[in-house]
Amino acid sequence: MSSKKPLAVPPYIGAAYYPEDWPLAQIDEDVALMKEAGMNVMRVAEFAWACMEPEEGRYDFDWLHRAVDKLAEAGIATIMCTPSATPPVWLTETYPETLFVLQDGRPVGHGGRRHTCPNSPVYREFCRRIVMRMAEEFGKDERIIGWQIDNEVAPHTDPAVQGAFFGRSCTCRVCRMKFAKFLAERYGSIDALNEAWCLNLWSQKYDRFSQVPTPDPRVWHHPSLLAAWDEFSSQSYVGFVKFQADLLHGHTIHPIGTDMMPFHEVDHYDMVQSLDLVQFNHYNYREDFRSCTAWFDFLRPLKDRPFWNTESSTCWSGNTATSGYSYPGFCRANTWLPIAMGGEANLYWLWRTHWAGQELLHGSVLTTPGRPRHIFGEVQQTAREFVETADYLAETRPTQTGLGVHFGHHAYVTFRAQPGTWGLNYLNVFQEKCYQPLIRAQFRPDVIDPRADLSPYRLIFSPVLASLDHGALRDRLRAWIEAGGVWVAGPLTDIRTFDGAKYRHAPFSVLEEWGGVYCKCQLPGHPMAFQMDWADGSECEGSLTFDAFEARDAEVLATYTQHELTGLAAATRRRMGKGQVIVLGTMPSAEMLVRLLTDLGREADVAPVCAATENVLVVPRDGGGGAGAVVVELDNKPGSVTLPRPGVDLLTGAATSGTVEVPPYGVSVVRYA
Amino acid sequence: MSSKKPLAVPPYIGAAYYPEDWPLAQIDEDVALMKEAGMNVMRVAEFAWACMEPEEGRYDFDWLHRAVDKLAEAGIATIMCTPSATPPVWLTETYPETLFVLQDGRPVGHGGRRHTCPNSPVYREFCRRIVMRMAEEFGKDERIIGWQIDNEVAPHTDPAVQGAFFGRSCTCRVCRMKFAKFLAERYGSIDALNEAWCLNLWSQKYDRFSQVPTPDPRVWHHPSLLAAWDEFSSQSYVGFVKFQADLLHGHTIHPIGTDMMPFHEVDHYDMVQSLDLVQFNHYNYREDFRSCTAWFDFLRPLKDRPFWNTESSTCWSGNTATSGYSYPGFCRANTWLPIAMGGEANLYWLWRTHWAGQELLHGSVLTTPGRPRHIFGEVQQTAREFVETADYLAETRPTQTGLGVHFGHHAYVTFRAQPGTWGLNYLNVFQEKCYQPLIRAQFRPDVIDPRADLSPYRLIFSPVLASLDHGALRDRLRAWIEAGGVWVAGPLTDIRTFDGAKYRHAPFSVLEEWGGVYCKCQLPGHPMAFQMDWADGSECEGSLTFDAFEARDAEVLATYTQHELTGLAAATRRRMGKGQVIVLGTMPSAEMLVRLLTDLGREADVAPVCAATENVLVVPRDGGGGAGAVVVELDNKPGSVTLPRPGVDLLTGAATSGTVEVPPYGVSVVRYA
Amino acid sequence: MSSKKPLAVPPYIGAAYYPEDWPLAQIDEDVALMKEAGMNVMRVAEFAWACMEPEEGRYDFDWLHRAVDKLAEAGIATIMCTPSATPPVWLTETYPETLFVLQDGRPVGHGGRRHTCPNSPVYREFCRRIVMRMAEEFGKDERIIGWQIDNEVAPHTDPAVQGAFFGRSCTCRVCRMKFAKFLAERYGSIDALNEAWCLNLWSQKYDRFSQVPTPDPRVWHHPSLLAAWDEFSSQSYVGFVKFQADLLHGHTIHPIGTDMMPFHEVDHYDMVQSLDLVQFNHYNYREDFRSCTAWFDFLRPLKDRPFWNTESSTCWSGNTATSGYSYPGFCRANTWLPIAMGGEANLYWLWRTHWAGQELLHGSVLTTPGRPRHIFGEVQQTAREFVETADYLAETRPTQTGLGVHFGHHAYVTFRAQPGTWGLNYLNVFQEKCYQPLIRAQFRPDVIDPRADLSPYRLIFSPVLASLDHGALRDRLRAWIEAGGVWVAGPLTDIRTFDGAKYRHAPFSVLEEWGGVYCKCQLPGHPMAFQMDWADGSECEGSLTFDAFEARDAEVLATYTQHELTGLAAATRRRMGKGQVIVLGTMPSAEMLVRLLTDLGREADVAPVCAATENVLVVPRDGGGGAGAVVVELDNKPGSVTLPRPGVDLLTGAATSGTVEVPPYGVSVVRYA
Repeated sequence: MSSKKPLAVPPYIGAAYYPEDWPLAQIDEDVALMKEAGMNVMRVAEFAWACMEPEEGRYDFDWLHRAVDKLAEAGIATIMCTPSATPPVWLTETYPETLFVLQDGRPVGHGGRRHTCPNSPVYREFCRRIVMRMAEEFGKDERIIGWQIDNEVAPHTDPAVQGAFFGRSCTCRVCRMKFAKFLAERYGSIDALNEAWCLNLWSQKYDRFSQVPTPDPRVWHHPSLLAAWDEFSSQSYVGFVKFQADLLHGHTIHPIGTDMMPFHEVDHYDMVQSLDLVQFNHYNYREDFRSCTAWFDFLRPLKDRPFWNTESSTCWSGNTATSGYSYPGFCRANTWLPIAMGGEANLYWLWRTHWAGQELLHGSVLTTPGRPRHIFGEVQQTAREFVETADYLAETRPTQTGLGVHFGHHAYVTFRAQPGTWGLNYLNVFQEKCYQPLIRAQFRPDVIDPRADLSPYRLIFSPVLASLDHGALRDRLRAWIEAGGVWVAGPLTDIRTFDGAKYRHAPFSVLEEWGGVYCKCQLPGHPMAFQMDWADGSECEGSLTFDAFEARDAEVLATYTQHELTGLAAATRRRMGKGQVIVLGTMPSAEMLVRLLTDLGREADVAPVCAATENVLVVPRDGGGGAGAVVVELDNKPGSVTLPRPGVDLLTGAATSGTVEVPPYGVSVVRYA
Repeated sequence: MSSKKPLAVPPYIGAAYYPEDWPLAQIDEDVALMKEAGMNVMRVAEFAWACMEPEEGRYDFDWLHRAVDKLAEAGIATIMCTPSATPPVWLTETYPETLFVLQDGRPVGHGGRRHTCPNSPVYREFCRRIVMRMAEEFGKDERIIGWQIDNEVAPHTDPAVQGAFFGRSCTCRVCRMKFAKFLAERYGSIDALNEAWCLNLWSQKYDRFSQVPTPDPRVWHHPSLLAAWDEFSSQSYVGFVKFQADLLHGHTIHPIGTDMMPFHEVDHYDMVQSLDLVQFNHYNYREDFRSCTAWFDFLRPLKDRPFWNTESSTCWSGNTATSGYSYPGFCRANTWLPIAMGGEANLYWLWRTHWAGQELLHGSVLTTPGRPRHIFGEVQQTAREFVETADYLAETRPTQTGLGVHFGHHAYVTFRAQPGTWGLNYLNVFQEKCYQPLIRAQFRPDVIDPRADLSPYRLIFSPVLASLDHGALRDRLRAWIEAGGVWVAGPLTDIRTFDGAKYRHAPFSVLEEWGGVYCKCQLPGHPMAFQMDWADGSECEGSLTFDAFEARDAEVLATYTQHELTGLAAATRRRMGKGQVIVLGTMPSAEMLVRLLTDLGREADVAPVCAATENVLVVPRDGGGGAGAVVVELDNKPGSVTLPRPGVDLLTGAATSGTVEVPPYGVSVVRYA
Repeated sequence: MSSKKPLAVPPYIGAAYYPEDWPLAQIDEDVALMKEAGMNVMRVAEFAWACMEPEEGRYDFDWLHRAVDKLAEAGIATIMCTPSATPPVWLTETYPETLFVLQDGRPVGHGGRRHTCPNSPVYREFCRRIVMRMAEEFGKDERIIGWQIDNEVAPHTDPAVQGAFFGRSCTCRVCRMKFAKFLAERYGSIDALNEAWCLNLWSQKYDRFSQVPTPDPRVWHHPSLLAAWDEFSSQSYVGFVKFQADLLHGHTIHPIGTDMMPFHEVDHYDMVQSLDLVQFNHYNYREDFRSCTAWFDFLRPLKDRPFWNTESSTCWSGNTATSGYSYPGFCRANTWLPIAMGGEANLYWLWRTHWAGQELLHGSVLTTPGRPRHIFGEVQQTAREFVETADYLAETRPTQTGLGVHFGHHAYVTFRAQPGTWGLNYLNVFQEKCYQPLIRAQFRPDVIDPRADLSPYRLIFSPVLASLDHGALRDRLRAWIEAGGVWVAGPLTDIRTFDGAKYRHAPFSVLEEWGGVYCKCQLPGHPMAFQMDWADGSECEGSLTFDAFEARDAEVLATYTQHELTGLAAATRRRMGKGQVIVLGTMPSAEMLVRLLTDLGREADVAPVCAATENVLVVPRDGGGGAGAVVVELDNKPGSVTLPRPGVDLLTGAATSGTVEVPPYGVSVVRYA
């Protein structure tokens, strides 16, 4: 719409900025320091409803225009946020029906965040008004590069429940009615729900959808109910964001997203359908720094557009207390990581630490009195590096290697409601047992939701994927395998219907048929772990579960060697059409998993991208800018990578080739010659 | 009433079967597999109210008759259950006053189990109707061998309270009124209650019974109130079961029981008064497998009729998650154990794992798709062995050895309300410190409630028995001792009134007088443990508590040797009439406890039943079938037993004599020559 | 008012006595044993409201007069208590608006203690009546030596919240209104509150004081709100006690106090303003025995009158369970300790263990049946020693050494709301890192509230003192330093406004200016600890926080040596007027802290009182009775003290001089020659 040169170009580096929390006059000092830091984008307004609408129907955007102006004058673009996470006190006081009602039946009041019901029509009306007014004010402003709707939408996390990490959804009258409607739409008739959930059991069956309760922590609930409630809860927030996105789409020229967290309480795949952009917040440090990689590999394929890492910390998290120290180099590596893995933005939370409030101990770029923190030099360096490599990064994308790994919301809510093995945590299992072994071995997968298109992949690993019923995956998988795909299934895959019930004809829907096996024995993953021998003479211990098979029309890859399982197969392979089905009855050791995928990859044309020590992440790129790679060290240890071709390190300008040392938290951007 | 041969004879082996949860046609497959497994009894209908009365007043028993028919056709008898643990949704929706009200004042809704008030007259009326209809349908059916009322009656277990193992009772208006009535009946006047509980203290005293609160977890309550509430709670469930038993007794030809768990929240002794049969469920594995023995020794004397083990698992427990693997042989040993100890039935929970719901990970005989689990062969073997030994078992009973050990509900609720020593758990203390040492040494006690008749016993051990006020025990004990009984009392015995108050004249009601001792010093059981020397030169460390005595008219058996206790007696003996009173001021080590009872047993004609390693349980039998013994290995280790006489192992047909090896989880049934 | 010789003279030794809980006739036996024990004072009536006013408006004091009479006849004085912690059941039943309302909105009912609202005007009216009646009965009675108002006033501790040690305040309608009023009085306008708390943040700002919520554990609240609520809560209880004290002051001849616990939930400094006496209860044993010393050093300067230790146990605490054994000598040392440190009374809780109720396992002087406990001899010995040293103790006071250490309620509530570093516990940090190192090194400080007069001190250590805004401390400190005071500030000192906000111009209000430093880097206290080098060549590791400075106009005392902090100052010194400001950026090791204060003390004329092993407490005394010291061993280990001058041990009558051995839990009272 404009021929003007944009204020800022990717990679974006910036921070969350809260001008409303500081004296008006301070903005010049802040902007000067942002320039000194090298920043080109700021995210504003996400919690500022009370400043924008100090009383019902009276709006004030002067302060916000002034902030956008001041930033733009300094060449800094703005990301504009809708403030629906934090309504003003007059709103919830005047319209208490907008409040979030916890499972104890009592509303959660003013004083924190996220204390309103995502389904409340009254709340949505007030959101409509503020969003439309913001669109009027800023929807055509070319100094703005995008919108963020709300902030970290998710059910209420109850600080009173010790160890409560996961949230609870609103149980107000509206939500209860909408939940009944959700079930009615899913099942059609109450008899169908009773049948799908086996509700003769314990005389649980219902006569009407309105009888189905929302979960009460005091009741021993049915896992299918709990999972349905989690699905409904996710859809409530997805619907709330879509409601705002639909409003904005008609009135802005900018792409729209919502910043989500590395959890599955709200369905990322579902959420981004109504949005233009994937936005993501993470707060990982040190030990769990590398767990970000799984999320970036998950975010990248969600949209055909680079994602934005909208929040991460420069050094540590904090609320009214803090902890944490990240060694030198962490801030730079952390800033580079999303860019390396296919994003185009990294914003810190936050620019300047709050001078009061619930998060006054959080890490930042500047301290409260405006002094550069110890990481300031790393921020500056990274900002410079972004400028220097911007052209190459713009002209290339991470290389698609043909390997997909399944991971998703449906499996998460299913295993949350029924872990199967005591203590099983889907996110941890995925990270530690399924994904990280591949990354350490330099596989470069896409992490994909079961609803995702399978065609980009030649080898797909589907571990701990409770159901193939989701997104018609079973049929799409069958076609993909028969056309030549190599599918590694299990353990704990294809074990449940969409509703979290078991199949009654077999332990799996199709895995026995496709895999040419018959499950003879099933033992839990604890406390006993069983050994297996592999065809190549190796042996290892399984974990998670122990399904043991007769290989009726399959090649045996590994055989159990203990107790009742002795002689039964732990892993098998069968040709199916032009493809293959590999069945895992238990989770092999990391070493044997990598060996298996490496062997299978030879037939599927999928391979590790290069040789490197396991602490080093290598992301090959290709495109108009020429082949190359971004290299990031993840574990704060020395490492090395063997470059497949000679090239130039764009960060140093030096020629590079062969086996190259990578220092702790080191970063390189190599363009091959 | 009938001359027909019964469908099945003991020992019964079977399972819980839920035909309502499966396709109608599947019953034939199930019944065929039951036969293959060797089963002769199935337990049905316990949660099936919604199928029997799908709407108020409309009944459907066709499906249940069909199940009884199909089973009977295959020679399998039925145990019929009343479904009062799980009302249909229409009932609690239409009559919400039937719902269980938790201590937060909010009712617990539909969706789990046990969410109704045991005292609700409205609920009882609906129970009356369904029970009477069931009695009409099945009360005279000779293919049925017994009734189970409800299932695992007990207060509500609140999953929201972390670590909440024990339940909370209903606090609805009816229960509050009945609690006041319960107190009024117990105390007669409010002044008597105030006096019994010392309620001048903290100005707690009441003017009327209706002022006495039900416990609120937010209040620091009086232990006598808490214990009274537990008693009331127990009586509520006892009354609820009796209500159903009284209805059934007029209309059935079968014996009636209710299946209870290995806890003391509901008073077993009280409960069985209105019943014909003792029924029992347990889920013990591996380490805690042997703890069943205490319960079986407790159940056996409750009725002059073999008890039924109505539930135990073949391999592991599970709800929406599971864990556990029991080594080969466990299933057989576990199935034999109740039979060995005087029962006549073992039923598994469950026949076929549910295909959905709150317990879809539980162990079973068949997996959900109907495949035999790894323990199927052990089930078959045990079933065959039951048939082979049925005649011998029917003609004999476990031998009464003259040793009784006190254990009961009143001590449980007293110590629950006032543990005395921080962390003291009555059940664990009884098992680990009092009972198991005797079992490992091959004593074969009856475990008896304080209300039980003392006449079968020559030696009684009463450890941790808070009060002698219960069941007029003090007077009965005195007579029994004076007539020649040997009583081993303490530690922590005779320390409280029936109401949980202390005596004011002495630390005990009569123990000082009967024992000829004067308690000079009392120290807690933690953190310091004190040593004692025994008369024979041995020494050991005490535990639980440290009461130290001057022996004024008593023989000193052990003397403390440390700090303030030095020189005071830890254990004493005094003749009283023709009998003896042994006072324990602390719990001796297992070794010294066994040595003491062995010495005392010489005079009381009580002795270990034979020599055997401590992992082996030997249960002598006698009766028309001839003397013999059942031997079960409990700890999955090799062991041995020295048979007192040569005999024949009825399971192998082989002659056996002398010291015989017992393999891990081994079982033998020996009839002496 | 009377010329009669008082019934008893200090040091007082006695116990809590509850005649209302025992048969009337028993009092003679009790009194005889009190005399045998050597006691000269008993504390009565604290929970006996229901006996004093059995129904509304009907009073009965006969039983209480009789108790005072019987005690006095035996020469035992009485401390009289008001019973407002435990209202009779008729009161809360008839006037339920007096009940304490927890944060869940539900009142806490009868059956425990402290279940009424301190702000309820109805409750206060009933308190007025009973207090006035007690004053009529006992206000002029010369056999009474003082009053205790209520008992351990503090917010409600909720036993249902696991690990809940700290209380929750009433949230009834009255309290909510009074909280709004409290805020209005503090801030004047709602805009001022919004500004002070930075409430644009998260759109938290309020339009009216009545909108400010009381804390809800389900909400992520603002730390300034939480701290304000804690202040309000404290003031509610302070006001409640003052209300009673004001009533009593007009009608009694005795000094008035209220017995408080070693916590800061209620502000001790604030509380004693309306009172005559400091009263204190503690229950420390073994490991934490020495933590009492900090409290006694805090209590002593609160009033120019010796404090009373109104409760401590002879041997162990207990409710319905107990644990604990204290080695021989503990009871005597524990009884002497408050006397040694400037008190004039030690009373045990309790005289005779209750025979029922919530605390029937508590340690005492007599067991329930009235037998002397194992510590009886120590009580007798200590009572004799009190008599023998009474004259000397009366004529001397602990010596003021010129050293003050800041400690107080405001810092407590600030750090409770915002710990700063995860897990930081203000009380523990003060004890372990700030105070005990000084005590072990034989410094003898006053522990002072920030509002206290600074003039008695030449050296003041102010660690972890969040704000200088409290009690106008900043201005008073400035004057004191300029006049010659040596101030050791930090770490974590001067970091917050009175409201718990940060300063915006610098990390501190004045510390940089006064200290001549500029804070370049701030890192959290965990998980990494940084090393520092001291000017004398020593090195140590810091803790709590890491503030690192450029010394712009200051002497560097210690320099960090690691990572980003390398070369920056960890501790500095600057002259200011005639005084000095020492800034600590982190907490040094105990050894280096002591070395620093020793060096600084040379200039400030502050020094350890003598040489002694660190387990020995030496409290010098001076006054008309002559110089001397009381010595107490705290850690149950052998120790020694080097007396500065020869003297006489008044407990043995023996001459003593030079280096003297102190046995475990040993006590000496030395008067120098």
